[in-house]
Amino acid sequence: MPAALPVADDVLAAATRIAGHADLTPVLRSRTLDAMAGCQLLFKAEHLQRGGAFKFRGACNAVWSLSEAEAAHGVVTHSSGNHGAALALAARGRGIACHVVVPEGAVAAKLANIQRHGATLWRCEATQAAREATCAQVQQATGAQLVHPYADARVIAGQGTAALELAGQAGAPDVMVVPVGGGGLAAGTALALAAVAPDCGLVLAEPAGAADTARSLAAGERRIDFVPDTVCDGLRGALGAPNFELLRAAGAGVVVVDDDATIAAMRLAWQVLKQVVEPSSAIALAAVLAEPARFAGKRVGLVLSGGNVDLEALPWRA
Amino acid sequence: MPAALPVADDVLAAATRIAGHADLTPVLRSRTLDAMAGCQLLFKAEHLQRGGAFKFRGACNAVWSLSEAEAAHGVVTHSSGNHGAALALAARGRGIACHVVVPEGAVAAKLANIQRHGATLWRCEATQAAREATCAQVQQATGAQLVHPYADARVIAGQGTAALELAGQAGAPDVMVVPVGGGGLAAGTALALAAVAPDCGLVLAEPAGAADTARSLAAGERRIDFVPDTVCDGLRGALGAPNFELLRAAGAGVVVVDDDATIAAMRLAWQVLKQVVEPSSAIALAAVLAEPARFAGKRVGLVLSGGNVDLEALPWRA
Repeated sequence: MPAALPVADDVLAAATRIAGHADLTPVLRSRTLDAMAGCQLLFKAEHLQRGGAFKFRGACNAVWSLSEAEAAHGVVTHSSGNHGAALALAARGRGIACHVVVPEGAVAAKLANIQRHGATLWRCEATQAAREATCAQVQQATGAQLVHPYADARVIAGQGTAALELAGQAGAPDVMVVPVGGGGLAAGTALALAAVAPDCGLVLAEPAGAADTARSLAAGERRIDFVPDTVCDGLRGALGAPNFELLRAAGAGVVVVDDDATIAAMRLAWQVLKQVVEPSSAIALAAVLAEPARFAGKRVGLVLSGGNVDLEALPWRA
Repeated sequence: MPAALPVADDVLAAATRIAGHADLTPVLRSRTLDAMAGCQLLFKAEHLQRGGAFKFRGACNAVWSLSEAEAAHGVVTHSSGNHGAALALAARGRGIACHVVVPEGAVAAKLANIQRHGATLWRCEATQAAREATCAQVQQATGAQLVHPYADARVIAGQGTAALELAGQAGAPDVMVVPVGGGGLAAGTALALAAVAPDCGLVLAEPAGAADTARSLAAGERRIDFVPDTVCDGLRGALGAPNFELLRAAGAGVVVVDDDATIAAMRLAWQVLKQVVEPSSAIALAAVLAEPARFAGKRVGLVLSGGNVDLEALPWRA
């Protein structure tokens, strides 16, 4: 299943599948931020989603897509961030085992969060090869289904339900602006818009220090040879293959954002919107503020997330 | 009008009066906080209210209660905090002048916030006597109506609309827990509950370093001779006379909370609820966590505020 490309109908099916598990999060507005941005900002509050991020949608769709026989062996993934916590939470909701492969050096607080949801942690070296090898070992030993953080049709379709819901709650936006890392949310949003808002544009916000999507879409082929350097810890992954195909087909645009602008936008979100969001989602607001002419007067949908916030230090005071 | 005691119907009238000016704020929930507290927490998100606090409700009710002739001369108050900003915003909404008397030493950011809403600032010495004298001078010079931050029937009735709305949105709670400083929100909530949820209890959360309400209710008479010492900058004022009468009549209970517990609760609100709230409202969550037996299994309504948050330092890292 991970190899097949999902289609727009898969997002509609995912919405039905995860209803009753995922929360219907509110759409937040701010007169002050609208005035600053020169457009109407519609913030889909997925930092209030279970697990603190939209990632629960994709994880939940994957977990509840499994047959009884498949589910009996549990699920496995490699992610020390929001996807790991989301998959653990979704698996617990179905009462099945969850294995999470985490690299040495991962932040203790994040691992504690994953364990709190009942997952089993498997340590490995901090390389992509070690992650995948350990994942394969766990799969072989347990029969668990791999649920990749983003290069997975079920995950992509699940993430798309955030934009679907936003359009249902607030009406179709003129343009959606979402962060892009591996491309799960980005590709899912493209499918959701194809299903319910075909006239809505799609703009991706990408950190300058991990701008493989911008390079890939410009080149017309995946260019993922890079060493990430960005405060957006959720966006350091390389664009997935199915994600690239879907984003290319959708004609998505990209705004590349410096970390300074992302941190300034994050501060605005905290100060004005009063929402504790993480850099990996504040980058979407930064993208809108960076290109006012592009968004002037439009209804702009954004997806917030906040699972990976560190409250030990304020980034704008570092 | 400030001398008269408001009644329950005044809260219903205020709700009608401020509709279309004040925002209908959401009620937020958190499974994690519910599990920690052992009860169902219903957070009325007034930090998302215009101006960042429920104070806009009272200010708005006062401003729109004025006759055309009264309104022509504007309004005046003394408050460098949320009430000053709220009154400025409400006055601008009606297109009338707003004068705010601020003591020397008030935080520049807060004054800028009040000026941003179009109010005129009047400086005075940092004593209660100087504030009142300057207020009286401005009244005499301009004919402006005094809108006291809390000892005002219109303000009390307006603040009560937050609990009224909460009961309408989520059903009547078993108990409301609100912070108490001067007692505007506290007394207004008592009236709102009398109107629509007579079986709902009322518990006030008060800082140990400004516990005049606890002392006053215990003594059966107002005991307001104290020097405030608390991180809750919105709760340093002395309990107002009408506020005391209404709270005594309502049989309100008080939980006295140390600043350490308030800061811990504020951190929880940021980390788990993802909401940037100020100490002066986090104290209500702290009160619930401090007395689990009192709230066990109940539906507990709380009112959040967030106008006066300082994002230059994290209090739990001080």
